[in-house]
Amino acid sequence: MTTAGVYTSTGVFVCFEGGEGSGKSTQSKRLAEALRAQGYDVVLTFEPGDTEVGKALRQIVLSPETGELSDRTEALLYAADKAEHVDTVVQPALDRGAVVITDRYVDSALAYQGAGRTLAVEEVAPVMRWATHGLRPHLTVVLDLEPTAGLGRFEGRDRIEGESLEFHQRVREAFVRMAGADPEHYVVLDARDGVDDIAAAIRERVTPLLAQAEART
Amino acid sequence: MTTAGVYTSTGVFVCFEGGEGSGKSTQSKRLAEALRAQGYDVVLTFEPGDTEVGKALRQIVLSPETGELSDRTEALLYAADKAEHVDTVVQPALDRGAVVITDRYVDSALAYQGAGRTLAVEEVAPVMRWATHGLRPHLTVVLDLEPTAGLGRFEGRDRIEGESLEFHQRVREAFVRMAGADPEHYVVLDARDGVDDIAAAIRERVTPLLAQAEART
Repeated sequence: MTTAGVYTSTGVFVCFEGGEGSGKSTQSKRLAEALRAQGYDVVLTFEPGDTEVGKALRQIVLSPETGELSDRTEALLYAADKAEHVDTVVQPALDRGAVVITDRYVDSALAYQGAGRTLAVEEVAPVMRWATHGLRPHLTVVLDLEPTAGLGRFEGRDRIEGESLEFHQRVREAFVRMAGADPEHYVVLDARDGVDDIAAAIRERVTPLLAQAEART
Repeated sequence: MTTAGVYTSTGVFVCFEGGEGSGKSTQSKRLAEALRAQGYDVVLTFEPGDTEVGKALRQIVLSPETGELSDRTEALLYAADKAEHVDTVVQPALDRGAVVITDRYVDSALAYQGAGRTLAVEEVAPVMRWATHGLRPHLTVVLDLEPTAGLGRFEGRDRIEGESLEFHQRVREAFVRMAGADPEHYVVLDARDGVDDIAAAIRERVTPLLAQAEART
């Protein structure tokens, strides 16, 4: 099984990670708009659910009506969503040299399925790496936020959001730990900072990646 | 990841495998009825689809409306179905000492996803083993049939049945190969034989397993 990381030689792959309400959606859109304004071919996407089969899987994993799912079932459904997403959306866009910006990727599965539940990250990771052909983002932006702050922003919570505070605390720690182990490919930003400040900090890390991608082609 | 086989010490786990139209459904029912008549606690089940989430996944993988799926996506959907099936149906029944008879299990995934498509069995197997905690049947009955004979029995074919004859030929060979590598846990029967003859041959292999399970408790 593929466990080593693979970075594409064409395109730029940027991923946003973080807990609920940390601003991933806002910041990924901001980045996409800024790069499009500069003339870049940008694909803004998300997991789970940004493919036809992904929509059906997202419905299963997030709907409170699903009830209890075995931990492995849930992890494998996320893995299936990722497999379809990489094969039909992410990789084709990178192959043509686009900038792909995704709201959540493998680290979410490792944090939520591995650290958040009862499975070990070490057993979930090979499954997710296999699903995604080991494809890694050139940069992962972790928007770090105290779970009480993020969860407080929502009224109706879905199946995952409805988990305990301790669950979300373990998820947060998992993101920060993964970032700490690979600073070259991660940046951790305080999600309580101003939206413009965060956007500027992200651009600072993305700009050299664009230059490197151009130099490679 | 779990790759070694695990055989439960309580209960008896029997699996039926084979191509389309090979009589798995008929023979698994026959066996279940015969054992129930003898007073055994029997759980007759099937894959994919014999759980709530499995039904939704079965719909996705078999419906012609799904269209193209990445090979890994399909394999992971089957793995998710198996994870839920083992955790919520198969293992609990074995734990209480029941005879579990399943129409399809891991070998179907290996044959159809591994040999039938472009993935290597060696890469699909660890995913399926992880999904099922490595749980193996005490006996797998392979009902062997020339694909032209089995497929001829159906008018409307689903997504998998609609594959090429070469695909179904590779699937058939995969079942026979797996059985040949582990004769202690497999029996291959000619699906063209009479229904009663096949049922009798299956009973001959299952009877000692029932005695062994009773001796263990």
